Amino acid sequence: MKIQLYKRDEIERVIRLDTDLIQEVETAFTALATKRVTMPPIMRIDVPEHNGEVDIKSAYIEGVDSFAVKLSSGFFNNPEIGLPSANGMMILLNSKTGEPQAIFADNGLLTDLRTAAAGAVAASYLSRRDSRTAGIIGTGAQARYQLQALLAVRPIEKAIVYGRNEKKASCFKQDMENTLGISVQTADTPEEAVRNSDVVVTTTPSTEPIVNGDWLSPGVHVTAMGSDAEHKKELKPSAIDKADLFVCDTIEQSKRLGELREIHSGGLTPIELGEITSGHRQGRSSKDQITICDLTGTGVQDTVIARYAYHLLEYKEEDIHERR
Amino acid sequence: MKIQLYKRDEIERVIRLDTDLIQEVETAFTALATKRVTMPPIMRIDVPEHNGEVDIKSAYIEGVDSFAVKLSSGFFNNPEIGLPSANGMMILLNSKTGEPQAIFADNGLLTDLRTAAAGAVAASYLSRRDSRTAGIIGTGAQARYQLQALLAVRPIEKAIVYGRNEKKASCFKQDMENTLGISVQTADTPEEAVRNSDVVVTTTPSTEPIVNGDWLSPGVHVTAMGSDAEHKKELKPSAIDKADLFVCDTIEQSKRLGELREIHSGGLTPIELGEITSGHRQGRSSKDQITICDLTGTGVQDTVIARYAYHLLEYKEEDIHERR
Repeated sequence: MKIQLYKRDEIERVIRLDTDLIQEVETAFTALATKRVTMPPIMRIDVPEHNGEVDIKSAYIEGVDSFAVKLSSGFFNNPEIGLPSANGMMILLNSKTGEPQAIFADNGLLTDLRTAAAGAVAASYLSRRDSRTAGIIGTGAQARYQLQALLAVRPIEKAIVYGRNEKKASCFKQDMENTLGISVQTADTPEEAVRNSDVVVTTTPSTEPIVNGDWLSPGVHVTAMGSDAEHKKELKPSAIDKADLFVCDTIEQSKRLGELREIHSGGLTPIELGEITSGHRQGRSSKDQITICDLTGTGVQDTVIARYAYHLLEYKEEDIHERR
Repeated sequence: MKIQLYKRDEIERVIRLDTDLIQEVETAFTALATKRVTMPPIMRIDVPEHNGEVDIKSAYIEGVDSFAVKLSSGFFNNPEIGLPSANGMMILLNSKTGEPQAIFADNGLLTDLRTAAAGAVAASYLSRRDSRTAGIIGTGAQARYQLQALLAVRPIEKAIVYGRNEKKASCFKQDMENTLGISVQTADTPEEAVRNSDVVVTTTPSTEPIVNGDWLSPGVHVTAMGSDAEHKKELKPSAIDKADLFVCDTIEQSKRLGELREIHSGGLTPIELGEITSGHRQGRSSKDQITICDLTGTGVQDTVIARYAYHLLEYKEEDIHERR
């Protein structure tokens, strides 16, 4: 049995948050809508003694020759000892034999990338083609990845960022101006960021909804990717009411862990992103629509990105052999 | 982050099915009875297209500084292409930080060993001290490990093996006589093996119960370790009725996946192995008792053996460094 352990730095060297990766992640949503997918409920191991938890996700897509099992952990005392709270790894298994093919000790890198890529997929079907200003709520790693992902699909010239911590917001501004070469402005309120943007991404672990329906003007698109647990929420009911089109990665998860939790709006008919990427439903159909996409994260995305990373890493190894 | 991948051959070089390992596995049962243990339900990913499944188990023991997540797979078309059906790997995580410490690509070796060691723990508390003849039902890898484990705790001089396939049974006889240096006899019926043994282990994936109550004479102990799923069973209700003491690793699993499934015996009060190993309950209390132990396998055993293997491997590495 050939099995390879890839560490984060090796993976970082070969993978880019580019249109290829975004297209791969798009196939995950299409698979969810069009193929038979086995995606068992998330397994959770609580370590209350150390304020920690490990979640295990997996998804097998019929006809695909490998699938991933992902362990992702949150240990919330880690920052006290200088470690990140989040950690994770993925294991790629052969679908025909069950044999492990590769292990990615990626510290959550692949999760960050597949989450950002999902934001880009949502923006490419739901935001206006001429979206030039991106509003980002939150200043963490995922806020950065989401902005970078938007640049791959829309002609973004400017970003407006809001974060509760001013220092972190100005750090975000500097970093992003340097690495992405666009102008970044910090906002005093989330309202300022939302009102002045064509496409908005909320990337917070907020437990109090932030985005108000009043702030949404015709033509705006909002992706809410922060909420992925029973106690988190980023959009007020008024925002959801205002949407002409409400899309989510999976309706079941959005109702359980995402923005549709406790929403009983009779008029709302949520649709899944895969119905759009597969061509069964239309995304944005006019300049003036207000669109929302709620992303909670799925095992299918993990399977797709683990396969993609494996392909890149294997290809690189072949390349090295050839050059020798 | 230091993370080490250990493959099966490396693990095989350092680990032995000896009294140290058996004592470690005993601590797993004691922990189940005396400590706070987080053991979520098994996660199962079905791959019906290839007649396969992956089960994921885990257990965190309060106060213990690492815990294991185990993937074990059964892909039942594998033998057609010359591969074993069963496969598996374990991941050891740091309990304080969630960081992965070690990955054991062990192809199920650690599972085999912890299962055999559990058989030895059961025999050491439940079989007669002077048990000299071991009856083994089944001729596979686990049948061999179980016999080897019995030799570590009882003065076994002879084994009687029964298998439906005569060729496999005689192969078992030869192998075990060569490697263990005891006399092995093949039986024509399971009855013959059970009736003439002091301690019996059933190691089959049988869906039809095998062992009849009539076959059990005073003083015998039977460990049933084959059944670990809703459709498997090795003991007839009459055997369970005949037991003076019925023990299992966890009552909940025995009722769901093991020998207590569909048993509604009013007189039966099953107890857990950990209640005995922890000293809260007595094991065998007389020469004439008939005792039964049903083992379905627990995540705590996986955590304990992964920690033990890690300790041996780390120790060995230190040793190598010292010698240099």
